[in-house]
Amino acid sequence: MPASPQPRIVSDLTESQLLDRLLPLMDTGPAERVGPGDDAAVLDLAGPVVATTDVVVRGVDWREDWSEPEDLAVKVVTQNLADIAAMGARPRSLLLTLTMEPTTEVEWVLRLAAQLGQECRRYGVSAAGGDLSGAPPGFASIGVTALGVLDGVSPVLRSGARTGDRVAVAGSLGRSAVGLSLLLAATAGSRGVGDVAAVPREALAHHRRPSSPLSQGPIAARAGASAMIDISDGLLRDAGRIGRASGVAVSIDSAALAPDLNWAERYLSREEARACVLTGGEEHSLLACFPATVEVPPWWRVIGEVVAGEGLLLDGRAVPAGGWDHFADRPGA
Amino acid sequence: MPASPQPRIVSDLTESQLLDRLLPLMDTGPAERVGPGDDAAVLDLAGPVVATTDVVVRGVDWREDWSEPEDLAVKVVTQNLADIAAMGARPRSLLLTLTMEPTTEVEWVLRLAAQLGQECRRYGVSAAGGDLSGAPPGFASIGVTALGVLDGVSPVLRSGARTGDRVAVAGSLGRSAVGLSLLLAATAGSRGVGDVAAVPREALAHHRRPSSPLSQGPIAARAGASAMIDISDGLLRDAGRIGRASGVAVSIDSAALAPDLNWAERYLSREEARACVLTGGEEHSLLACFPATVEVPPWWRVIGEVVAGEGLLLDGRAVPAGGWDHFADRPGA
Repeated sequence: MPASPQPRIVSDLTESQLLDRLLPLMDTGPAERVGPGDDAAVLDLAGPVVATTDVVVRGVDWREDWSEPEDLAVKVVTQNLADIAAMGARPRSLLLTLTMEPTTEVEWVLRLAAQLGQECRRYGVSAAGGDLSGAPPGFASIGVTALGVLDGVSPVLRSGARTGDRVAVAGSLGRSAVGLSLLLAATAGSRGVGDVAAVPREALAHHRRPSSPLSQGPIAARAGASAMIDISDGLLRDAGRIGRASGVAVSIDSAALAPDLNWAERYLSREEARACVLTGGEEHSLLACFPATVEVPPWWRVIGEVVAGEGLLLDGRAVPAGGWDHFADRPGA
Repeated sequence: MPASPQPRIVSDLTESQLLDRLLPLMDTGPAERVGPGDDAAVLDLAGPVVATTDVVVRGVDWREDWSEPEDLAVKVVTQNLADIAAMGARPRSLLLTLTMEPTTEVEWVLRLAAQLGQECRRYGVSAAGGDLSGAPPGFASIGVTALGVLDGVSPVLRSGARTGDRVAVAGSLGRSAVGLSLLLAATAGSRGVGDVAAVPREALAHHRRPSSPLSQGPIAARAGASAMIDISDGLLRDAGRIGRASGVAVSIDSAALAPDLNWAERYLSREEARACVLTGGEEHSLLACFPATVEVPPWWRVIGEVVAGEGLLLDGRAVPAGGWDHFADRPGA
């Protein structure tokens, strides 16, 4: 079937014509024994396999007017690879699903795919397979499944923290939330997209294209980390998860957060900045606990300690864990 | 945060409250080293890993008025596990994503999860992880990633067919398409859902809850199959894919399809029945090629042979491969 001379929207192409354009953009080399194009991929993964999946939805997890397709590609890859790294594993492969309405612009899809391919090559992971599906008008989603290998180390769970461990973070805190706050403020009320242009670009960078110190996951595992988590729902909420899973309390010292707070206060009030650093999600930094007997590796900064009890302490006082709930649009449990 | 006494829609619950209800329904036992609840799952998969992913969307891949949540669960599990089987592999684990609007009934989600758990136990696969996301009003999607192991056999690709191989099928042909035709006819024009009740239940069974002869995938691989594919887009289209990938022609003998045609003709005209058997998708039977030097295993019936040339022959005459295109709503390339 001949395509129209200038295919603009995805229904101008058959599925196989679209795949013929997409797959070269996501070519990540011959890493896999069998890559895209057969019923399934065949991956030479040695030892235990670490696996995670995430899906993002237009209008819920991203706004078309705030996110370029390249931003989305960076976001979905980062959030999945950070989950792999937070187990102490090295990411190896991604599988992708994409649902989109027939009027989706081909250019949008190609830009998304090109950036996905670039992220895969950047992190040395293969794009091993995927699935395309149509969607009703207005709907779009991107699903990613990431697979990783442990290279001989034991997986680092949330449940291994013990009293006396130091609590440390690799990466920034609150940067994604600062960007989101500024975007929300710029477009609040009757003001429109135009105001977004006035927001300093560096304040939006991490929200738009988050990065994660992925290599620090395996490094922490080798150094002897007792527990680890990816900060996807905010420092307090994710630290609380380690505490609950381990049957201990996590105590955070806010003085250790000064670099993050100082950065955030360039753009927001002291109170807003503090909220971003303590509860801001989608940061994808790594939070880990290290027993007193091991050395905290470089790139990790100690921000607290594990103490007896349960729950979460901030500067010695009990705090409820804050976060975000997907369905209720309110702080989660 | 207290939930309302009778949580009815998903926004009556926090995400973690919903997960507390869902996860026990999908408990598939302690097969994995680390199951749901940490950043990622850890799977003890020996040797190469076979991986595939699929997503289905409400209004595109299923209609709420035709499909119970249990039907959907069976469908998404079957279609993914069939892709694993079609490589000659044994399925081991699933990862699931679910997007749904906040007003989705909790009961619907719990029924879906319960059936997903049942299907996993039935096939001996673990539900290793997943992700929930909200969706805008009217939207829902289910994504599945399936992982499998080869147990020492080489993966059976689409590209291994050679001239002189016999072409054989394990499972039925056209059953899903017959059900779909009857549903479409029953609801065509101004007639409504009521007419669906008049359609014989046995004619709809495979469309609603497809099954796949999964164990025949590894059996065919061990028997020496040269090429294999899951029939998801119709016999002709999927046979054509083997032919193209292998650089040969696949020749189908329609006399060998008599059992399928006879069954389909109970419900449809001869011409409609033939279209269902030859081009009906979502069947999830397995199509494989066996060299003349090996024995075609029991449960497989020979329906044709591999010949020199390219493309597809039906009773000796060249045919274009028919099928379905996700975006263009028309026969695909």
